[in-house]
Amino acid sequence: MKVTGNKEQNLKNARDMIIRASSDGAGMIILPEMFNSPYQAKYFKNFAETYPGKTTEMLSSLAQKLNVYIVGGSIPEKEGGKIFNTSFSFGKNGELIGKHRKIHLFDIDIKNKISYRESDYIAPGDKITILDTEYCKIGIAICYDMRFPELIRKMTLEGAWIIIIPAAFNMITGPAHWHIIARTRAVDNQVFFITASPARDDNADYIAYGHSLVCDPWGEIIAESDEKENILYGILDLDMIPRIRKQLPLLLHRKEEIYLP
Amino acid sequence: MKVTGNKEQNLKNARDMIIRASSDGAGMIILPEMFNSPYQAKYFKNFAETYPGKTTEMLSSLAQKLNVYIVGGSIPEKEGGKIFNTSFSFGKNGELIGKHRKIHLFDIDIKNKISYRESDYIAPGDKITILDTEYCKIGIAICYDMRFPELIRKMTLEGAWIIIIPAAFNMITGPAHWHIIARTRAVDNQVFFITASPARDDNADYIAYGHSLVCDPWGEIIAESDEKENILYGILDLDMIPRIRKQLPLLLHRKEEIYLP
Repeated sequence: MKVTGNKEQNLKNARDMIIRASSDGAGMIILPEMFNSPYQAKYFKNFAETYPGKTTEMLSSLAQKLNVYIVGGSIPEKEGGKIFNTSFSFGKNGELIGKHRKIHLFDIDIKNKISYRESDYIAPGDKITILDTEYCKIGIAICYDMRFPELIRKMTLEGAWIIIIPAAFNMITGPAHWHIIARTRAVDNQVFFITASPARDDNADYIAYGHSLVCDPWGEIIAESDEKENILYGILDLDMIPRIRKQLPLLLHRKEEIYLP
Repeated sequence: MKVTGNKEQNLKNARDMIIRASSDGAGMIILPEMFNSPYQAKYFKNFAETYPGKTTEMLSSLAQKLNVYIVGGSIPEKEGGKIFNTSFSFGKNGELIGKHRKIHLFDIDIKNKISYRESDYIAPGDKITILDTEYCKIGIAICYDMRFPELIRKMTLEGAWIIIIPAAFNMITGPAHWHIIARTRAVDNQVFFITASPARDDNADYIAYGHSLVCDPWGEIIAESDEKENILYGILDLDMIPRIRKQLPLLLHRKEEIYLP
């Protein structure tokens, strides 16, 4: 999705694209990070919602009407005077099946290249998030969370076979790290690893890299978007997971006692 | 190094290449995994040595004579009726500064592609290994050890700025995973990550992938070998580490309490 400064338009766009993906046969639909608001502090206050709110109500009713899972990217969520970067997920009956608040906040300062302090505007979550679905367990984390291998490992050890990351890397960190981190998390954990980015908008304050990915448990990219707005489809062969874990039993070979602090 | 079934020849080759690297100005010289023996069970018993032994004595005296650090790849080490896959490292006075026994043993079984059970012949180590050097602390692990992000993270948290991995990936796992794992470990931990592989020998039972790498803490490959025997040189700008860790404070942003089992 290309995200604009007009919330109504963002919601309409999300709705239209969800309907289109569903009519193309999608069973689970994933939106990008901050799909209803530009990724910029000045918008967060006005665009933020408490739960339930306009955006989550729309996602819930679409999930029910279309009989699909929706992983609602993320939105600015208001609670107790704080704003969180939160991903709400809905099951096929429209019920909330998970809520992830971004744990790790993106504070970066590379001189003359990029400077951003998410923690000035956003409060951190403190819980890992696993969805129970009819397919398998699914771990949800947001953007900068994916840089922490411990988090992805923990979701894997708790049974996730798919990890979904709504994310907006930028034009510095995207080309440098996006593909290798996604692929390596998939390989290390022998899971499907999916990233969903907003489309690139060269006029935005924070320019997203795009390139949403679907990586299989062998680390192959089985679907990749470009930087434009579009729907990326992937078919996940979940049988790959037990097969690969039997061939190369990485998770069984872990030596927990050696890693302890 | 191209490793042969003749131990004397392997030692002579190692010696010649170490002298050559030193005369080209190397301050630290790294050999590949199993540089004195083919990576094949039938050789291990006869090629294995107790410490100190012929191979380690040679490395120690070369380190002293040439005034260089030597990370001695790995060799089959005999102790107490067991054989370990062990890396011995020597300081500029020829003193032993570290010994790493491969912790994670490579047991893989991909039908019609590759099958290998290292644990049938090799006993596992149970300790992480950090060298103290005049440059910085350096973590040592061997091949399959690098697939475990927890181990690399632990070495980083104990202060390693360089991670060195003597390793022999193969023609299945090498093309699929070698580069992305090395680069992602470097990026995640903001360390230099160095892999040293034997040269490829298409006639060997176990065919090594080659492609020794030097990755910088931003995940860039700053030096890469091909599959042939050669000396790969890298100059490490250690100032990159505090600089990058200040720009993107990944290690400070970790939320240990959330990752606990």
